[in-house]
Amino acid sequence: MINEKILKWGTSRSVIRELFEYGNALKREKGEDAVCDFTLGNPSVPSPKEVNAAIKEIIDRPNAHAYTSATGALNVREKIVKALNKRFNADYSPDGIIMTTGAAASLAIVFKALVSSADENIIALKPYFPEYKVFIESAGGVCREADFDEDLSFSLEDIERKIDKDTLAIVVNSPNNPTGAIYSEEKLRSLAALLEKKQAEYAHPIYIISDEPYREIVFDGAALPFIPKIYKNTITCYSYSKSLSVPGERIGYIIMRPTVDLYETLCYAFLGAARANGYVCAPSLFQYVIAEIGEVFSDTEVYKTNRDIFYEELKKMGYSCVKPQGAFYLFIKSPLGTSIEFSERAKKYGLLIVPADSFGAPGYLRIATCVKTETVKRSLPIFKKLIEEK
Amino acid sequence: MINEKILKWGTSRSVIRELFEYGNALKREKGEDAVCDFTLGNPSVPSPKEVNAAIKEIIDRPNAHAYTSATGALNVREKIVKALNKRFNADYSPDGIIMTTGAAASLAIVFKALVSSADENIIALKPYFPEYKVFIESAGGVCREADFDEDLSFSLEDIERKIDKDTLAIVVNSPNNPTGAIYSEEKLRSLAALLEKKQAEYAHPIYIISDEPYREIVFDGAALPFIPKIYKNTITCYSYSKSLSVPGERIGYIIMRPTVDLYETLCYAFLGAARANGYVCAPSLFQYVIAEIGEVFSDTEVYKTNRDIFYEELKKMGYSCVKPQGAFYLFIKSPLGTSIEFSERAKKYGLLIVPADSFGAPGYLRIATCVKTETVKRSLPIFKKLIEEK
Repeated sequence: MINEKILKWGTSRSVIRELFEYGNALKREKGEDAVCDFTLGNPSVPSPKEVNAAIKEIIDRPNAHAYTSATGALNVREKIVKALNKRFNADYSPDGIIMTTGAAASLAIVFKALVSSADENIIALKPYFPEYKVFIESAGGVCREADFDEDLSFSLEDIERKIDKDTLAIVVNSPNNPTGAIYSEEKLRSLAALLEKKQAEYAHPIYIISDEPYREIVFDGAALPFIPKIYKNTITCYSYSKSLSVPGERIGYIIMRPTVDLYETLCYAFLGAARANGYVCAPSLFQYVIAEIGEVFSDTEVYKTNRDIFYEELKKMGYSCVKPQGAFYLFIKSPLGTSIEFSERAKKYGLLIVPADSFGAPGYLRIATCVKTETVKRSLPIFKKLIEEK
Repeated sequence: MINEKILKWGTSRSVIRELFEYGNALKREKGEDAVCDFTLGNPSVPSPKEVNAAIKEIIDRPNAHAYTSATGALNVREKIVKALNKRFNADYSPDGIIMTTGAAASLAIVFKALVSSADENIIALKPYFPEYKVFIESAGGVCREADFDEDLSFSLEDIERKIDKDTLAIVVNSPNNPTGAIYSEEKLRSLAALLEKKQAEYAHPIYIISDEPYREIVFDGAALPFIPKIYKNTITCYSYSKSLSVPGERIGYIIMRPTVDLYETLCYAFLGAARANGYVCAPSLFQYVIAEIGEVFSDTEVYKTNRDIFYEELKKMGYSCVKPQGAFYLFIKSPLGTSIEFSERAKKYGLLIVPADSFGAPGYLRIATCVKTETVKRSLPIFKKLIEEK
């Protein structure tokens, strides 16, 4: 008794969370200024004022806190679909969206709905958010990893090597955690072509699961390709955690176009998976908040400022990194030793950055830039010292 | 591809939800007054005013919508534990409570943590909330059913027959959905004695999983036994859905005393199961609301009024039912034909009551009494007509 696999997921806290807790202890001991904490993807900017204004208005409605239908309140789904169809010139229907308790829930539900035998696999593109592996394995499938190229984009060749008859889906995350990379339309079109070929070869759908919590955080007017129009069999998992700075409230959705293969079956399977995982409905108040405020997002200008400072200064010092086009992460190569060794050396100076081994990228480290700009500036002399020590 | 078992949970909507949707359609067609809808356990009384007052105050705090730790914010857990220890003279610790996204999440997490092979079983006491079976099977285990006696309490003899070396736990739900019964202290002590004996025989813990969403809804000053003091190996799953009339907000907890067997292992296993199911943290705003308002609950006097009217009047008409001591349900025997036939006959008059076959109790029907008293009164002539037609 006691499921060992699940126990392991409970005891082996993520490296990120462990460093974060270490930082908190250090702050209590030596003061806030003794620590430069770049561990967690916890948005530092406030929610747009519309969020709290909407809350104040909605809570006086008679059914603000009542159950909604399992797929989410109909008027909420209608409003989201209308806004997305306008913005992306798309053809979503309110039947094809399920409100969820955030992107983690969306992903866990989609994986659970898809996997039906232990032979089946879902491909994650390195470097990738470590929870993908937990959710895929929890659903009973195999998480298969595909390599990345020097430019931090996925290796199409390696994806081709990894796909087989038991591949159900491939997870795409752009803007990317942990690299901040945006996959180009050209790159995504080659991926789509490969998947079309493989679908025909194996005579079953291979879905792109597009994990898009960073969709609204894009810099320098970079174009973010709309994947559902590049590849028909796309299932999108969205979260408002980063775009509205409400990560604790757990609100997001799963959406797909009506042209997706097995559309109706998938709708029911997602409902079944949500039910089986103990979800009843997405938090009702925040469903109504989303409908109320529409396409309003947090002001994320500071993430760009931080990226600019970090990228310019670290490059000058001799660090190797690719300029992020979105999200709030910078991905650097360890200038000396393994990423774990480098992270340990940095810790001695109160500088907390996450070794990317659990993202499938040993030798790299992730810097979360969703912090105050003064923390970025305060960290620069430490980064300099660390590379000069080498 | 597409998990068939999970698809089935999506397509076979619960009988309750189906009747409820039928009722909504009928109301749109013929008007609210043409329907007496007793299908859903959706609280009809408003939340205490403290809930919305707390929301208005909390949302202006800097981190109101930020991530909390996976177990829940420490100050929230501390406040709940302190209140419970005072009320029940208990010894809970903030380490032994995990804030969850409602009782459904709590149960799904506990089952998933416990089940490690397909041979293992968890016992549900008929009549029982149908989702238990879904959650247990989703966790990979077997849901084994134990019979009930004429007084609607569990049959200890049948539990003894059903327990074997692969029994991990038994789910107890008092006040009960669908009967409104409260299990007496004497009855629970005999269950505890049986479980102690079986634990010794099989040399492993057999937990009571106490599902307590109706804990605060108790009539006539009935004593509600505190199970963790009757049986050491009790894991309690609580929800604020009914006690605060906030079922859409999804907030509850799992709690156990430090003396529970495998306490520390269970704490980690619950965290692992929550992580694997895609839970990150319980909705942050409502965590803080719970801490802020303390032991304040909705005024549920109307549920007692409704129970009294229903019980007295239906008895007079000749219906067979046991007087509920809590929750907001009345459980009746079908006076003619199967419960499904009786429910179908009632539907013709716009009277919606749920056949209890999916609760493991064919021949019975559940009346949800969490409605306006005028609806109860309006339904009485129809109940009379139905029993006279027989």
